[in-house]
Amino acid sequence: MKYAEMSRAELKNEYEQCLHEYYNFKARNLQLDMSRGKPSEGQIQEVLGMLDVLNSKSSYKTEEGINILNYGCPDGLPECKKLMADIIGVPAEKVFVGGNSSLSLMFDYIMLCYAKGTGYGAEPWSKQGEVKFICPSPGYDRHFAICEYIGIKMIPVDMTATGPDMDQVEALARDPLVKGIFCVPKYSNPTGVTYSDETVRRLASMKAADDFRIIWDNAYCIHDLFGREDKLLDMLDECEKAGNPSRAVEFCSTSKISLSGSGIAALAANADNLAYIKEFYSKMTIGYDKANQYRHVLYFKDLAGVKKHMQLLSDIITPRFEVVLNALRSELSGLGIAEWSEPNGGYFISLDVMPGCATRVYNLCKEGGVKLTNVGATYPYGNDPKDSNIRIAPTFPSLEELADATELLVISTKLAALEKLLETKN
Amino acid sequence: MKYAEMSRAELKNEYEQCLHEYYNFKARNLQLDMSRGKPSEGQIQEVLGMLDVLNSKSSYKTEEGINILNYGCPDGLPECKKLMADIIGVPAEKVFVGGNSSLSLMFDYIMLCYAKGTGYGAEPWSKQGEVKFICPSPGYDRHFAICEYIGIKMIPVDMTATGPDMDQVEALARDPLVKGIFCVPKYSNPTGVTYSDETVRRLASMKAADDFRIIWDNAYCIHDLFGREDKLLDMLDECEKAGNPSRAVEFCSTSKISLSGSGIAALAANADNLAYIKEFYSKMTIGYDKANQYRHVLYFKDLAGVKKHMQLLSDIITPRFEVVLNALRSELSGLGIAEWSEPNGGYFISLDVMPGCATRVYNLCKEGGVKLTNVGATYPYGNDPKDSNIRIAPTFPSLEELADATELLVISTKLAALEKLLETKN
Repeated sequence: MKYAEMSRAELKNEYEQCLHEYYNFKARNLQLDMSRGKPSEGQIQEVLGMLDVLNSKSSYKTEEGINILNYGCPDGLPECKKLMADIIGVPAEKVFVGGNSSLSLMFDYIMLCYAKGTGYGAEPWSKQGEVKFICPSPGYDRHFAICEYIGIKMIPVDMTATGPDMDQVEALARDPLVKGIFCVPKYSNPTGVTYSDETVRRLASMKAADDFRIIWDNAYCIHDLFGREDKLLDMLDECEKAGNPSRAVEFCSTSKISLSGSGIAALAANADNLAYIKEFYSKMTIGYDKANQYRHVLYFKDLAGVKKHMQLLSDIITPRFEVVLNALRSELSGLGIAEWSEPNGGYFISLDVMPGCATRVYNLCKEGGVKLTNVGATYPYGNDPKDSNIRIAPTFPSLEELADATELLVISTKLAALEKLLETKN
Repeated sequence: MKYAEMSRAELKNEYEQCLHEYYNFKARNLQLDMSRGKPSEGQIQEVLGMLDVLNSKSSYKTEEGINILNYGCPDGLPECKKLMADIIGVPAEKVFVGGNSSLSLMFDYIMLCYAKGTGYGAEPWSKQGEVKFICPSPGYDRHFAICEYIGIKMIPVDMTATGPDMDQVEALARDPLVKGIFCVPKYSNPTGVTYSDETVRRLASMKAADDFRIIWDNAYCIHDLFGREDKLLDMLDECEKAGNPSRAVEFCSTSKISLSGSGIAALAANADNLAYIKEFYSKMTIGYDKANQYRHVLYFKDLAGVKKHMQLLSDIITPRFEVVLNALRSELSGLGIAEWSEPNGGYFISLDVMPGCATRVYNLCKEGGVKLTNVGATYPYGNDPKDSNIRIAPTFPSLEELADATELLVISTKLAALEKLLETKN
């Protein structure tokens, strides 16, 4: 029965029942954390062998004769470029291999466009007035943090089941001061949505400034769960076809494939963007860590090796998602107080509680012993206008911890809704 | 006998003798390279054990419980921070540990000052008009490349035996649009000079804009050779004492201690600068590669371990410097056509040939089979006004190759001088 259809007495009764459960939980004095998308110990253990493949007995010259332990090869070992290209699903000649962080590559790229422009002869964004980015929301807090730090105004746009609301996006992109959009196009953080073919094509072909850039953060490109796999169009291809070949730059890393912090990041771009970006990096560094690039090549060998490994990770992560989703389904379905994503991959579940209740749910969980991602973190400037969205990160805790944490989350979601309904239903 | 004192006949005779030697050398069809400061194979082999210390059987938690294979610890593992601090010679709390490249840390810092200013409330350099940097010359080409790329005008200042000409520096620093200076204060690239105490103190205390920054690239801080050791004052301390506590930021890396490309970079700064820089990196990355930081800690253990290793490297590098220096001394002394540095450490020997002859020497060497660093590379905008400086990088070639390459360099230096003297002495 929907809460909204309950009488005051029924609500009161339900509230007391939930409060009882809440205090029972709290009395257990647990300290659980569902706040950040971190790999679990099990995931790390699956890849420890990568630490062994390069050692003092190994050859440190590639087949082409590149010495991986000396300077040189500033845009990445060819073998690693190929591996990253296959993971992203683009030709190797479009790829630049960076350090350990795709976030850094995105930050650098936006800083480059801001300070020097999107290409040779382009006016720096910083010289054009109050430049703006379209930010599909809920989205990734660290994307928003880059914009805010560099001084790019953020305009939130609603996420739908097929990606950002494209009517809103197209209308905004006509403003010549709107310079870009941040997208996590596959298993989006946090909604789990994969952009539809129509969304990708509209992004590639819509009217926008010449120096408008799609920051295509394909962070979860091969991060399938449940044995299911969403399909995503190749954005670089679609931009090419639409006559906007330089519009998108794609980013990816192995942070959630191999090791978080010791992975490999890469970007893919068309020839013009790539030449411009490579020049930037040729001024910034003599080259990234080729030893770690080579470790990845020796350990995974090829895309098939990576996919086999991703299956092992899915075997660890999928049950965690199931624990959370099963609890949400069995406890919250039909109450009319919450909706949540059922993603086929990625790292997050997005929970929308009754509008105006997210902060209360967060605080109830915090006091009860479960840390959630800060409310509002998934929106530009930390401001969720509906105070409704909660990002659940199920990967790090154990199955038992997740079951406990979700139990509290469910109770808190009910409690917050009941409080609100009791307030209004006098 | 000085060439300048020779009669035309003597010059002619000497010229023919040198030309004969030159063609003999050229006939050997060698392909040698003294152009870049790269470690040799022997140096790499001394540190291969670092690839073994972290493996699938190792603990990947530090004593404090930090998981080095997961996210976290964005300003560096405490153990690594301590190690880098000891190498630089500053307290650990002044240190931020970055990726594999100190050049990147410098680039980032200058980009930060340019786009956002040197601190909270400071006007970005980019908004202040045509900002300028003082560039002691000859200097490091990649420093100059950063300035040129970001759009900072470079003003060359002469290097002396005690560092940059401080009278020139002090006069220039009074211009409020002069925003900084690039320094390699110990075993300077390429002159090998270590800044005197007086130079350091004058830099720290001179009148300059509040947002003037000394980029203190202490790249060769423990890179002693010949069993000798230059002493350098602590620039951060001197700035503090002079009442300009935020004036300098210090940079360093293990690129020429452990592995080039797979080393660790760090910076040191006072509390204000460090907080500002840390905020920048907190937006750019979730953290650098802690596995590689831990490898350095496990392998070297402490400063004593690093110094022991540097002695092994000195045993490899010192004879290479000796080969070059002995040849220069025995072949060029007393001719009045060349001067060169006799450094106590670092990676380079700086050779000043007769003014107007460096390009000719470079071309003669190139045609004879020896690649030198591009002439002019050691000056801003690639412009050596005297066409005189040649940077010799003795570390990479073998002793035999160095002996050969220096032989050609000496012959070419004589030939170019003789050509010039014969032109003028009619």
